[in-house]
Amino acid sequence: MQLFYSNTIHNGCITLNDEEKNHCTKVLRKTVGDVVHIIDGAGNLYETRIMAISKHDCVCAIEIVTPQFGAHNYKLSMCVAPTKNSDRFEFFVEKAVEFGIDEIIPIRTDNSERKILKPERIEKIILSAMKQSYKAYKPQLYELTDFSELLKNPVNGIACIAHCYDGEKQKLPEILQANSRICIAIGPEGDFSEREVKQAIDNHWKAITLGESRLRTETAAIAAVHSVYSFFSTNS
Amino acid sequence: MQLFYSNTIHNGCITLNDEEKNHCTKVLRKTVGDVVHIIDGAGNLYETRIMAISKHDCVCAIEIVTPQFGAHNYKLSMCVAPTKNSDRFEFFVEKAVEFGIDEIIPIRTDNSERKILKPERIEKIILSAMKQSYKAYKPQLYELTDFSELLKNPVNGIACIAHCYDGEKQKLPEILQANSRICIAIGPEGDFSEREVKQAIDNHWKAITLGESRLRTETAAIAAVHSVYSFFSTNS
Repeated sequence: MQLFYSNTIHNGCITLNDEEKNHCTKVLRKTVGDVVHIIDGAGNLYETRIMAISKHDCVCAIEIVTPQFGAHNYKLSMCVAPTKNSDRFEFFVEKAVEFGIDEIIPIRTDNSERKILKPERIEKIILSAMKQSYKAYKPQLYELTDFSELLKNPVNGIACIAHCYDGEKQKLPEILQANSRICIAIGPEGDFSEREVKQAIDNHWKAITLGESRLRTETAAIAAVHSVYSFFSTNS
Repeated sequence: MQLFYSNTIHNGCITLNDEEKNHCTKVLRKTVGDVVHIIDGAGNLYETRIMAISKHDCVCAIEIVTPQFGAHNYKLSMCVAPTKNSDRFEFFVEKAVEFGIDEIIPIRTDNSERKILKPERIEKIILSAMKQSYKAYKPQLYELTDFSELLKNPVNGIACIAHCYDGEKQKLPEILQANSRICIAIGPEGDFSEREVKQAIDNHWKAITLGESRLRTETAAIAAVHSVYSFFSTNS
């Protein structure tokens, strides 16, 4: 099943625009009367039929709606410092969407080498991964946020920070037993600073370990998402 | 700690060659008398001191040996169909080494789009990931092997196959409870063929599920390695 994306919905019809329209009608040569499956980013899968194709768009009549398509049974926010090499951060985003994630919050930290992030490319990766992995809910991508500022506000669920300094740490499954809303912070190549870890702990974030291996930023982030995904798959 | 790699060991000295020698003496400007940490791919970390530098090599005297450096408490072989886009397979290899893996067996399957694999680049990625993640044991990379042929021989540990067809499947943690030697097969973009799955089951491979999401080949492979890694981290 090939999925398309559009959130332009009006009077029982969905309109495909630009790239989605071109992919549908030019690359795949779909035409009036053909069935097309569309996700809206709000959790719905629509089985539709093409009614009209014009130069700029393709109007599809909704025939069947499947709500909560590809939904997961947890709420996960990941706060991750973008890696110096943008491919690595993008790979994390793709894998996170495939497993299932709700919020991606890129963070600027004391040891961050990357202080700027262009969201357009990441939004494209999110959409592409949604279509590939059959998920109709679009995770929210936040702007690059100072981690110290983020720590001042309450987060969505129980808050955890993975760091490499000594100290008492919990394993993720222990925390997940009591919480299905979780927010996990992963630091940059040089780890969070001790100041940031202290500030997080002072703000009631829980220190966690992701095992004994020394993991790259994007690997740690993928590991955390997979731990949450597999915990709730195993226990559902 | 910066690690170098060499398995040229003789009379209490290790010799760094080529790229490793250049990186050590030219890029990092290490000189005679400096301490250098070297892994040998057989599980040992050596703390050494540079004794002599010539045009082609750098001879280091071994001072301290740490065996089983970065070792893990399981044996994992992954049989994975290389992806059409080689970056994706290489990303799997890197992540697998970071978590901890023993054997990487690229497989040629009925639905494989890639029938050829160049090992040189993958060997480099393995070495680089070992050095980055502090692991002295070098996983073995096999030649691209016909999956049907591989099924005719006994594998290293209990054998599992992840596929997307209907049928009874176990979750990995259930299998890991009784086995710390495990071999997991992950199919290509179009999945294993039904013929291959049947042949595997007939040869006593166990069908496994990696959860509800529709995962790309390299994502499924990373998920499987992380499941094994985190199972033995959690239970050690």
